[in-house]
Amino acid sequence: MQNYKNTIRDYLINMPKISDKGLNMPASPIRKLVPFSDAAKKRGIKVYHLNIGQPDIETPRGALKALQTADIKVLEYSHSAGMLSLRQKLVEYYKRFNIEVKEDEIIVTNGGSEAILFAFNTCLNSSDEVIIPEPFYANYNGFAVTSGVKIKPIISRIDDGFALPPIEEFEKVITPDTKAIMICNPSNPTGYLYSKEELETLAKIVKKHDLFLLSDEVYREFAYDNAEVFSAMQLKDIEQNVILLDSVSKRYSACGARIGMFITKNKEVYNTAMKFAQARLSPPSFGQIFSQAAVDTPAEYFEAVLKEYIARRNVVVEAINSIEGCFCPTPKGAFYAVARLPIKDSDHFCQWLLEEFSYQGQTVMLAPATGFYSNKGKGKDEVRISYCLNVNDMRAAMLCLTEALKVYPDKK
Amino acid sequence: MQNYKNTIRDYLINMPKISDKGLNMPASPIRKLVPFSDAAKKRGIKVYHLNIGQPDIETPRGALKALQTADIKVLEYSHSAGMLSLRQKLVEYYKRFNIEVKEDEIIVTNGGSEAILFAFNTCLNSSDEVIIPEPFYANYNGFAVTSGVKIKPIISRIDDGFALPPIEEFEKVITPDTKAIMICNPSNPTGYLYSKEELETLAKIVKKHDLFLLSDEVYREFAYDNAEVFSAMQLKDIEQNVILLDSVSKRYSACGARIGMFITKNKEVYNTAMKFAQARLSPPSFGQIFSQAAVDTPAEYFEAVLKEYIARRNVVVEAINSIEGCFCPTPKGAFYAVARLPIKDSDHFCQWLLEEFSYQGQTVMLAPATGFYSNKGKGKDEVRISYCLNVNDMRAAMLCLTEALKVYPDKK
Repeated sequence: MQNYKNTIRDYLINMPKISDKGLNMPASPIRKLVPFSDAAKKRGIKVYHLNIGQPDIETPRGALKALQTADIKVLEYSHSAGMLSLRQKLVEYYKRFNIEVKEDEIIVTNGGSEAILFAFNTCLNSSDEVIIPEPFYANYNGFAVTSGVKIKPIISRIDDGFALPPIEEFEKVITPDTKAIMICNPSNPTGYLYSKEELETLAKIVKKHDLFLLSDEVYREFAYDNAEVFSAMQLKDIEQNVILLDSVSKRYSACGARIGMFITKNKEVYNTAMKFAQARLSPPSFGQIFSQAAVDTPAEYFEAVLKEYIARRNVVVEAINSIEGCFCPTPKGAFYAVARLPIKDSDHFCQWLLEEFSYQGQTVMLAPATGFYSNKGKGKDEVRISYCLNVNDMRAAMLCLTEALKVYPDKK
Repeated sequence: MQNYKNTIRDYLINMPKISDKGLNMPASPIRKLVPFSDAAKKRGIKVYHLNIGQPDIETPRGALKALQTADIKVLEYSHSAGMLSLRQKLVEYYKRFNIEVKEDEIIVTNGGSEAILFAFNTCLNSSDEVIIPEPFYANYNGFAVTSGVKIKPIISRIDDGFALPPIEEFEKVITPDTKAIMICNPSNPTGYLYSKEELETLAKIVKKHDLFLLSDEVYREFAYDNAEVFSAMQLKDIEQNVILLDSVSKRYSACGARIGMFITKNKEVYNTAMKFAQARLSPPSFGQIFSQAAVDTPAEYFEAVLKEYIARRNVVVEAINSIEGCFCPTPKGAFYAVARLPIKDSDHFCQWLLEEFSYQGQTVMLAPATGFYSNKGKGKDEVRISYCLNVNDMRAAMLCLTEALKVYPDKK
């Protein structure tokens, strides 16, 4: 109806049209369910939000205090690459993970989002291709449209726990237009943590075909069961090919700080990205003061957070794998899991959960996995579960899901 | 030498190349002089920085205090359009300027920079054209390259005080690819404040050719001599064509807050820009808390600031117009002036000031106006002066400029 109106209006009144890029820009696949969730709440139903990655963990008090007691007379622009003192502190931070970077290899960005845009704009021409194993973080699509690059997805399979697809799958889609491979490690949405061996496999492909490796590692801190976190920055022999994309959002439960990092040892790439950074002048100063202090967050903070997330994860994985016809690989990192359910259409199921189902006055909001795949038809029997809520709420949410699957009419 | 090495390296080792967009991205025209300024300082020379728009005015304490006493447990993402409470407060702010906007017509952005990118991405296809009177804010070039749009400059003349070019000049460059006109009002770099009549002239062109009008009004607060500030949002009959681009950076001497605004009454444009906003999740929360409180900054703050800037401006205009062969129109707004000097090459002159000149151990850093023109050869006898320093420093800086012009060897 809206479109019909627009068409008529266009005929009646000459109006400037929005851009093709604007038309092609994808809407958030998660946001479309929000009206159904709002309506459920209006009917008095409690909705457990497992659809978004907004942690409920408290932001480190020390870092907040550092900002709140800072003596600020004039809130000036910072250096376009970020405050030197913050970048020096980040060098110290990365050392703890055996990542050797220098202060002039770091550009502080407006969240991880801007770091991704800088990488796409710096490395890829319009119509150049970046290979991304899917399911992948849905907003990569938006950044690709914004900067005009093409995403070539290759499938990672739930039955393999979403491991790196075999090298042949990469070779199959590499063309002269392929310019980069992008990964998210640990992965949003799958929670998969790439092994050192998998990254070394990637390094070989990257080297062989002269590609950039864009490595989104914003969930570095969230690795479970003593799993080793190996960064793309630690790969030998492809130092000039790697761009590390990072953020403090999840690390310190500080999503609103909007502080990310673009890191590379490739001087040409760095200097080019700096031109994009200079055009927008500087990243946010308040967030930088906060982030600098956050590097000193005591280890106990992370130990407590990890313990909590492992407990939440275990609730999810155990609950789902005990339902007949369901399967959820055990994530080794991040705070997401992708589960296969005996359903025909995850978009329908997730909407039904909000629109038609409740159990003891409660329901659960999940993200249909279709939004994380580019290949049409993929993810129709999968959902992404964000285990951002406390253990009791996670248990209640899993009980809702269990009961829902007993009565959902459109099962496989 | 560096280039030579790179070429050899490229032959020896296959390396992924950076993008054409990255190559075409302009470096900051002001930044290239920084090494000369650093070297001057190393030689013990005091450099007055009239080259940048970083005000020395104190940030309102009340707004800083609001952030520093805010009770923050979890620093969450805000709404992608910005916190509702901030947008409601902004509605109140704009009312004071007779600008009627609603909370759902505002998107809070990462500084004015992101608002400009949203406007370009939403309104213009790659290779679509935007007409901008020049000299204009140099970073518009960077945003144009980033989003792939073409800038068509038309000349505003120093002898007219940089008034709006005649309507024929616009008509001359309008093609089927023209999609928008962009202005900065009051203007960086000229300080020119468009009259209501000039804006109504623009409205007619916009209406006639179905264009968008992108109005960058970040210096709204800085209008002198009781001049009326008339916003593009107040224009009748083109409400659907106007996008207001704004920022708190200069308004509250809070450049580091990185809070800007994208405002439009055009629902289609708004909804499209929201897709870009959703992809990057949210603007910075700390800056939003600060900006919300800043709306309550008492009127006396602005009265004192205006008085101070008028005094600074008068020092500049009087000093320059008293030097033989120099001309500086009196700016009615912002805190910049463009002056014509009896020089052949402003880039050379500005570098010479730092490299070879000093007066009583002091010199002045100016921005060559060439960086603010797209037309080659324009601005060679003009410099931009930012009057961001206190009156005593401005006097000392103008004395340096006066003495420098007595001895500069490459005069006209």
